[in-house]
Amino acid sequence: MKSIPGGTITSPGGFLAGATDAGLKARGGLDLGILYSEAPCVAAGLFTANRIKAAPVLLCQEHIANGKAQAIVVNAGCANACTGEQGFEDAAEMASLAARRLGLAAQDVLVASTGVIGTRLPMELIGAGLEKVALSKEGGHQLAQAMTTTDTSTKERAVSLEVGGKESIIGGIAKGAGMIHPDLATLLSFLATDAAIDAHFLEQALREAVSLSFNMLTIDGDTSPNDMVLILANGVVGNKIIEEGSADAEAFQAALTEVCIYLVKSIARDGEGATKLIEVAVEGALSAADARVAARTVAGSPLVKAAVYGSDPNWGRIIAALGRSGAEVEGSMIDLFLNNICLMKGGLPHPFDEDEVREAMKGGEVPIRVCLNLGSFSATAWGCDLSEEYVTINSAYRT
Amino acid sequence: MKSIPGGTITSPGGFLAGATDAGLKARGGLDLGILYSEAPCVAAGLFTANRIKAAPVLLCQEHIANGKAQAIVVNAGCANACTGEQGFEDAAEMASLAARRLGLAAQDVLVASTGVIGTRLPMELIGAGLEKVALSKEGGHQLAQAMTTTDTSTKERAVSLEVGGKESIIGGIAKGAGMIHPDLATLLSFLATDAAIDAHFLEQALREAVSLSFNMLTIDGDTSPNDMVLILANGVVGNKIIEEGSADAEAFQAALTEVCIYLVKSIARDGEGATKLIEVAVEGALSAADARVAARTVAGSPLVKAAVYGSDPNWGRIIAALGRSGAEVEGSMIDLFLNNICLMKGGLPHPFDEDEVREAMKGGEVPIRVCLNLGSFSATAWGCDLSEEYVTINSAYRT
Repeated sequence: MKSIPGGTITSPGGFLAGATDAGLKARGGLDLGILYSEAPCVAAGLFTANRIKAAPVLLCQEHIANGKAQAIVVNAGCANACTGEQGFEDAAEMASLAARRLGLAAQDVLVASTGVIGTRLPMELIGAGLEKVALSKEGGHQLAQAMTTTDTSTKERAVSLEVGGKESIIGGIAKGAGMIHPDLATLLSFLATDAAIDAHFLEQALREAVSLSFNMLTIDGDTSPNDMVLILANGVVGNKIIEEGSADAEAFQAALTEVCIYLVKSIARDGEGATKLIEVAVEGALSAADARVAARTVAGSPLVKAAVYGSDPNWGRIIAALGRSGAEVEGSMIDLFLNNICLMKGGLPHPFDEDEVREAMKGGEVPIRVCLNLGSFSATAWGCDLSEEYVTINSAYRT
Repeated sequence: MKSIPGGTITSPGGFLAGATDAGLKARGGLDLGILYSEAPCVAAGLFTANRIKAAPVLLCQEHIANGKAQAIVVNAGCANACTGEQGFEDAAEMASLAARRLGLAAQDVLVASTGVIGTRLPMELIGAGLEKVALSKEGGHQLAQAMTTTDTSTKERAVSLEVGGKESIIGGIAKGAGMIHPDLATLLSFLATDAAIDAHFLEQALREAVSLSFNMLTIDGDTSPNDMVLILANGVVGNKIIEEGSADAEAFQAALTEVCIYLVKSIARDGEGATKLIEVAVEGALSAADARVAARTVAGSPLVKAAVYGSDPNWGRIIAALGRSGAEVEGSMIDLFLNNICLMKGGLPHPFDEDEVREAMKGGEVPIRVCLNLGSFSATAWGCDLSEEYVTINSAYRT
């Protein structure tokens, strides 16, 4: 597996994309885009766990049910959520308009929206905007831009890998800076590959990659009705179809997971108001579930996040978060490391140079490592610090 | 039941209290106090659900196991948590020192601590401080002061009620502004009454009152290893012992719940950085558990809290929080009211005057009412808004 510098979702063969300023975002900028594959794709998707599902999520679930798709149309600025039957009709109309523009059946177009909840999609702007979208091999960057809301940067990644003796590429983009929490009520992410992949294995690989990446990301504990991760595989490299259990499947799984983790770290780094990436590794848990929930709880604790923001090695808050996580923990067994410096050993404070730790915590990444010393399971979660800016952004988002 | 203006924990007959500045808080002020009953008490307590339990919690659980106590000694500034066996010995020593001062057995003294995690109690300061504590009928106010940390005000309440033809009083004090979340990993609260109460019923009544008050309070989703709610009943009014199922039991339960809810609302109003109290009432849920979790999730959502801070009627965030709460909800059935103004009816936006709602949200209390219209269960939760000040306080707590 090799990273592709400047790679994005259109790096794999046969994918084009483009975006336009359709006038949907209050502050202007690209806000409507299309991802298009020149060949039909095997497709898989995972959708928000929120019980209130936005219209585009409901539509996508219908369109992807046959395991096929050939394009994704996405807009920012309006989430088309809590819009009732009218909202569903608008999402379907958006798919139809894009399909007509691309010469596809509406069923083969997936739809995603992000932005303010509870207002109708301005269908005239969407219709006019779709006419303006120009597709190109470089368009992935524009598409990544068009799906952002409060993001301050795009999230893009591509890697190459060899499958069946041919070079294949996996590219991905993502969007998300707030309303982000595990269990795939997360954000929008689109992934594409030019490898030929068995539909069943593609969904399974996506599930596995997401469980190790997007579902281990927490920004603020909130989740959105709109969020989804979609993957399209068009097979244009002509490899033997990748099936479960093969060596190619293993390589593909590793590469897909890498792309997802890269995107997740980019999102955490760009969390609303974030100044630092927090990576929490929990080791020695009694079960995988324990390791996951412990890592996620620490990464999501407002008090831990605020302490990291202040470069304050207040490890008591990490211990308190572990204690309430629901994971099996034994106070007297815990070892704790912040920026690779031991702060706690066997459940008791371990002498450390406070200035040294504070200095280390001032960097852009703060790794927290917890050894529970009870079993053999581990997990890693990602999040960001909590700054005054998070509050400022979210107390006046709509104004 | 009648509210007692200026009432506190020493309002019930036979209770004395006092506090001193023992030098435990970095910023000075009262930090060590005693609650003392002139007569032996029936006692009950509920303790943190955090798996990492502080030494005073472990000690209290031992001392209260026989259902009796006669005094509580409390300090702020140092939590005596994550201090291992030494910490337990220090807590036991603190009980012994207080017992000697009061002429009681150590077993009859309960101990509570709050403050920074992971440092030893300065036992010399505690010993010297306890000698200085002067007990009086007015000392409840001082005690309420001594248990505060980042609190900006004390939380005190007393009500009178008639039991068996005699006037009895329930008084309570509480402390807490951060690291507060349901399931009784909450805060410190001490309650006292001069009524005679059956020990079994006292614990049951405390459990019921706490489930409707402290366990419906959320400030930041974090919980502490130290927290507890204790109640002492000394029976000095000489009423017939209140037992489960009697009319007196019902009156006592109502009064105790009232005191707890009052304290909880005081705590929410004084949440770290809070400018507003949020009260979330969920009605029409399919089960009591659904109503409770839905109310708590909305009250705890960082995005809802930030929107309330900004007086922004961003009801989409309330709906998103309901959707991820785990409660059974049906998008198309929900009615939603903010400051008693309908924003959503049958799952769709309801026309409202945005300026009017913004104006209403600028008050000190923001009531959110959600009708799920699925069943007959309801619950109320309390929280506070999220301001930049919360972050500022918690990014530099120790400095």
